[in-house]
Amino acid sequence: MTKKLSIGIVGTGKIGRLHLDSVINHIPNAEVIHAADPYMPDDVKEWLQESGAIRISLDPDEVITDDAVKAIMICSPTDTHAELIVKAAKAGKHIFCEKPVDFNLQRILETMREVKKAGVKFQIGFNRRFDHNFKKMHEIVQSGKIGEPHIIKISSRDPAPPTIEYVRSSGGIFMDQMIHDFDMIRYLTGKEVQFVHSNGSVLVDEAIGKEGDVDTAVVTLGFEGGAIGIIDNSRQAVYGYDQRAEVFGSKGSCMTDNDTATRVSLITDEGVLSDKPPYFFLERYFFAYVEEMRGFVEAVLEDKEVVCDVIDAILPVVIAKAAKQSYETEKPVYLEEILPKKTIAEYLS
Amino acid sequence: MTKKLSIGIVGTGKIGRLHLDSVINHIPNAEVIHAADPYMPDDVKEWLQESGAIRISLDPDEVITDDAVKAIMICSPTDTHAELIVKAAKAGKHIFCEKPVDFNLQRILETMREVKKAGVKFQIGFNRRFDHNFKKMHEIVQSGKIGEPHIIKISSRDPAPPTIEYVRSSGGIFMDQMIHDFDMIRYLTGKEVQFVHSNGSVLVDEAIGKEGDVDTAVVTLGFEGGAIGIIDNSRQAVYGYDQRAEVFGSKGSCMTDNDTATRVSLITDEGVLSDKPPYFFLERYFFAYVEEMRGFVEAVLEDKEVVCDVIDAILPVVIAKAAKQSYETEKPVYLEEILPKKTIAEYLS
Amino acid sequence: MTKKLSIGIVGTGKIGRLHLDSVINHIPNAEVIHAADPYMPDDVKEWLQESGAIRISLDPDEVITDDAVKAIMICSPTDTHAELIVKAAKAGKHIFCEKPVDFNLQRILETMREVKKAGVKFQIGFNRRFDHNFKKMHEIVQSGKIGEPHIIKISSRDPAPPTIEYVRSSGGIFMDQMIHDFDMIRYLTGKEVQFVHSNGSVLVDEAIGKEGDVDTAVVTLGFEGGAIGIIDNSRQAVYGYDQRAEVFGSKGSCMTDNDTATRVSLITDEGVLSDKPPYFFLERYFFAYVEEMRGFVEAVLEDKEVVCDVIDAILPVVIAKAAKQSYETEKPVYLEEILPKKTIAEYLS
Amino acid sequence: MTKKLSIGIVGTGKIGRLHLDSVINHIPNAEVIHAADPYMPDDVKEWLQESGAIRISLDPDEVITDDAVKAIMICSPTDTHAELIVKAAKAGKHIFCEKPVDFNLQRILETMREVKKAGVKFQIGFNRRFDHNFKKMHEIVQSGKIGEPHIIKISSRDPAPPTIEYVRSSGGIFMDQMIHDFDMIRYLTGKEVQFVHSNGSVLVDEAIGKEGDVDTAVVTLGFEGGAIGIIDNSRQAVYGYDQRAEVFGSKGSCMTDNDTATRVSLITDEGVLSDKPPYFFLERYFFAYVEEMRGFVEAVLEDKEVVCDVIDAILPVVIAKAAKQSYETEKPVYLEEILPKKTIAEYLS
Repeated sequence: MTKKLSIGIVGTGKIGRLHLDSVINHIPNAEVIHAADPYMPDDVKEWLQESGAIRISLDPDEVITDDAVKAIMICSPTDTHAELIVKAAKAGKHIFCEKPVDFNLQRILETMREVKKAGVKFQIGFNRRFDHNFKKMHEIVQSGKIGEPHIIKISSRDPAPPTIEYVRSSGGIFMDQMIHDFDMIRYLTGKEVQFVHSNGSVLVDEAIGKEGDVDTAVVTLGFEGGAIGIIDNSRQAVYGYDQRAEVFGSKGSCMTDNDTATRVSLITDEGVLSDKPPYFFLERYFFAYVEEMRGFVEAVLEDKEVVCDVIDAILPVVIAKAAKQSYETEKPVYLEEILPKKTIAEYLS
Repeated sequence: MTKKLSIGIVGTGKIGRLHLDSVINHIPNAEVIHAADPYMPDDVKEWLQESGAIRISLDPDEVITDDAVKAIMICSPTDTHAELIVKAAKAGKHIFCEKPVDFNLQRILETMREVKKAGVKFQIGFNRRFDHNFKKMHEIVQSGKIGEPHIIKISSRDPAPPTIEYVRSSGGIFMDQMIHDFDMIRYLTGKEVQFVHSNGSVLVDEAIGKEGDVDTAVVTLGFEGGAIGIIDNSRQAVYGYDQRAEVFGSKGSCMTDNDTATRVSLITDEGVLSDKPPYFFLERYFFAYVEEMRGFVEAVLEDKEVVCDVIDAILPVVIAKAAKQSYETEKPVYLEEILPKKTIAEYLS
Repeated sequence: MTKKLSIGIVGTGKIGRLHLDSVINHIPNAEVIHAADPYMPDDVKEWLQESGAIRISLDPDEVITDDAVKAIMICSPTDTHAELIVKAAKAGKHIFCEKPVDFNLQRILETMREVKKAGVKFQIGFNRRFDHNFKKMHEIVQSGKIGEPHIIKISSRDPAPPTIEYVRSSGGIFMDQMIHDFDMIRYLTGKEVQFVHSNGSVLVDEAIGKEGDVDTAVVTLGFEGGAIGIIDNSRQAVYGYDQRAEVFGSKGSCMTDNDTATRVSLITDEGVLSDKPPYFFLERYFFAYVEEMRGFVEAVLEDKEVVCDVIDAILPVVIAKAAKQSYETEKPVYLEEILPKKTIAEYLS
Repeated sequence: MTKKLSIGIVGTGKIGRLHLDSVINHIPNAEVIHAADPYMPDDVKEWLQESGAIRISLDPDEVITDDAVKAIMICSPTDTHAELIVKAAKAGKHIFCEKPVDFNLQRILETMREVKKAGVKFQIGFNRRFDHNFKKMHEIVQSGKIGEPHIIKISSRDPAPPTIEYVRSSGGIFMDQMIHDFDMIRYLTGKEVQFVHSNGSVLVDEAIGKEGDVDTAVVTLGFEGGAIGIIDNSRQAVYGYDQRAEVFGSKGSCMTDNDTATRVSLITDEGVLSDKPPYFFLERYFFAYVEEMRGFVEAVLEDKEVVCDVIDAILPVVIAKAAKQSYETEKPVYLEEILPKKTIAEYLS
């Protein structure tokens, strides 16, 4: 416990507090020293004040210009991300930013260009990469134990549909829910998507359909080299948060089942009853959020590569846009129709 | 053990002998009384003669015109199916026929028309419907326990690619391997497919690609009412015959894992090692083949509906043709592009 | 299908018919040619006559003295076993006999002496040794993969208590139910028991207690070299026939879970529901009975060692007697209190 | 976050620091305000000073007489427990004490008498009661879903034997390792043990045998009403910390499998490989330790009953002594041979 990373946070809503809790309670080599939120509730203020000598501001700029702050966690609303990232990068701060950087692809690209120019660490908030199950699958695939990936399947289903207000501003199921799976499938395979083809239906809630969105979606993805991916999403799995994946390859397959609260079975005349999956992302990914932040802190302190980088902030958005367009046109959409290959290559370097 | 069904068989190759074994050893209320094969090997002859008073002919017509024969099992090469079915139907025999009736859709339709006209029982050989796991999934879906199906997933992977000679005459992966899954997805959901979209790659064996075929294929299927299906096939799962499915619905989900030879686990410092799936279809579906024949015998003796009927002989072929066309055009293909809705409806009645 | 073993059977009750079915339908290199039962029901007679040229007698001696008969399956009531075995051995027939040889230990020893003198094959009916799960565990232990066995656990529970009439003549839970587990624990470990200590209770059915028997029993067993075994029995597991085992050793552990009818799971808001174990021994051990007979036939035809030999007919009875005595005295009982070590050694050779 | 419990701790060794971490990082309604250890290492001091305004003393008495301290956590060596408990009770402090209170039964009884007289809360450190798996089993049994317990099985195996120095002062396997299981079996069943019968062997490490101890032990336990328990312990399960249990009853059974680090399976030609259990108690029971302390804090703040009370501090020691005596005498030992029923009853009230 020698060096400690001094962190400033912008945005103390639900996800901001989750990250604050990780740093304060679980990451001994980091400390939050400055927090800004124009609308910080009193109980959050109290909690921060109890948690140590944390400076509190209304204006995010005060955090960004605070010389003692070495890294910024951006947890404010999406439409503020790009501007804050650029400011923080110019101020030479390392950046953790919740996903997505923006809904506008050009703006994402410009923002990421500034980050690269500044040479600061940048980590985008794809927390599932830090989940114990998916991390192990990634390691197995990387180790070569299953050989070359051929078919990759992800099931990712929420327990209940969000409010219509949320749906309206979410960017749609491909941008809001499946974007995590677009990131995951790249993480699991280590391969890049070439094209996608989407199917979607309104089967859960007609109101979602009225917003022009779907609540049930299946996307197939073509990878460089010929591997084929399949992602299915539903806004409502009544039994909980269903998060499974499989990577099938030339030498074998690896897959993860859902976590469960216990390993207990009850055997009666009815059959064998065991636990359903945890309720939702806070239950399932709590430790992934901690590990995500621990990874960021470690990357900064030890000057290591972050696990989700600039390119990971760009490509899932590109895939989501392609998926939406494919759903609308009923045709496969190649990623280069959304973003020229050359531009992608530039960020991959 | 009162009434017994007298059966004649045409074709005593691998699959014919499998069905013969089922009838002789496992189905007490049926007996094979006449078998025809122009090239019956001597050991098969001996075996049949030992198994009871089975008449042996070279010419299939002798079986069809044998008055004592009440039902015919057609296990001869595919290109003889249509003609034999028509003859048997006209002779008033009940018919079990291995899949497919034919590769030519018009010929299938004409043949099925003759069957309907004759009013005989007709069962097509989709053996997996009689598998304990899939049958139970079908029953669960029918019972309403998972509500309305939303997403249906089938993984169906062979242990090793067939010979190139086999590939050449197989009709391609969609017609040869995935046709079983096209039938299964209809069986599991009780719903009809409206359109399909295919992806395919050559990842296992380049020689398969040279024949214009693929060895890895993923098809998404759109159902009436909006449910979405996903089927993935590979010609080579090095760990065995992978046969899994899931039906996810509005009230829950049901899924089947693979069978295994034992339920034994070995726990060492390496981890917990348990059995991989059985090697191939004979190991996995042995009892499904017995049950298939038992079902046919029962349907005839008790004048009940068969489990795979005339329409089930037609639609999987239509879907396979659509899937192939979709693969070639990279566009979704609606079933009615292959066969007019009106024509399908006629057979569904 | 060259050589065929000609078998005579004595006793065509429930278990006799099970073995007849195995030979007739599943074992091509054996045939039943003579069956005797003083009380053979008409439907069994009919079935046998339909099944081939099987001679039917009232008197077991006719089977034993039938020159064409090379091996005898003794499936008559227990009190006739010893006499029939001796007669069959003297007639030079190979013998398969249902367990136990007798309830009287001295009589068993004398009978086994005659068998050894005659030099015929003798197999005692411990069918569970032929179960796929237990056989695989045996092989794993033999392979050395778990090292030296330290702790061995068997759970063996029936679905429902037998009738009081059955209990009365059963010899008690240790002799009737747990005797299978005494054999199993020797089979799994390849080690010999030195002493046992028993606990028993009447928790299922008071009527069983009134007969001086228990319905719930736990026995610990001390093995040569220090390994410790644990067997638990219940006359009533309401969820089915519970048949599990574990061998824990110096390098790892192996265990078997129960078989299930399917591998299907239903996931709803209630949890994950999967299949309970099969109902009872006919469901669970059907194929073990076939394999048992196949093993006997093979041992005779190819002059190989049988899997359950003379010593296996003796020792489980010795252990059962020790277990009963331990229950009555509340003290551990060493096997040599029941049978001198020297005598055991004589049969082990 | 209204009321907060002010806690003093005595002993800041390994287990003390674990509890400190729980209170500091995971239990918002408690705070450690005073810590005493005559040999507190510098890094622990630093950590405590960083963690808040924690007073540090050499002498435990200073914590006990600190008026601001409302509850004491006793984590010092076992031979100091009894004296510290009595002092703390007399000072009116609520007490959490690591197990055991003492090795001497009379001393435990006297100590517990003082606690009862003082009327303070007292919780003994049986952390496994707070494990998610065992807690759920307890709840299922309490709910009546499995009916009346008939057979209870616990496997509890350490990954590697402790040092011989540890073995020497441990009180032996029954008092050191199996005491947790004696508590667990009472917790799972809600029933009291009447007698035990022990078996033990030296199979892992001969040096353990030279100390007069065993490394492999199996104990059967007779319960009031006739239920029978089985506990097996090994000092070395090479695959990790094996912690499983089953309660089999009149209406069904419930059981827990081991936790695993992930739910990932790797399927290759070798079979299906999944995770072994976690390495040892810190990995498996980390959250149980947190929950244990949370339970204690809640019991004090809300004046609720603690989960492991005075009687739970006494009875497992009584059972352990009976188990050791049974091992030495090879006879069952009734608990009342160790402690008169009347005395037990006095503490059960």
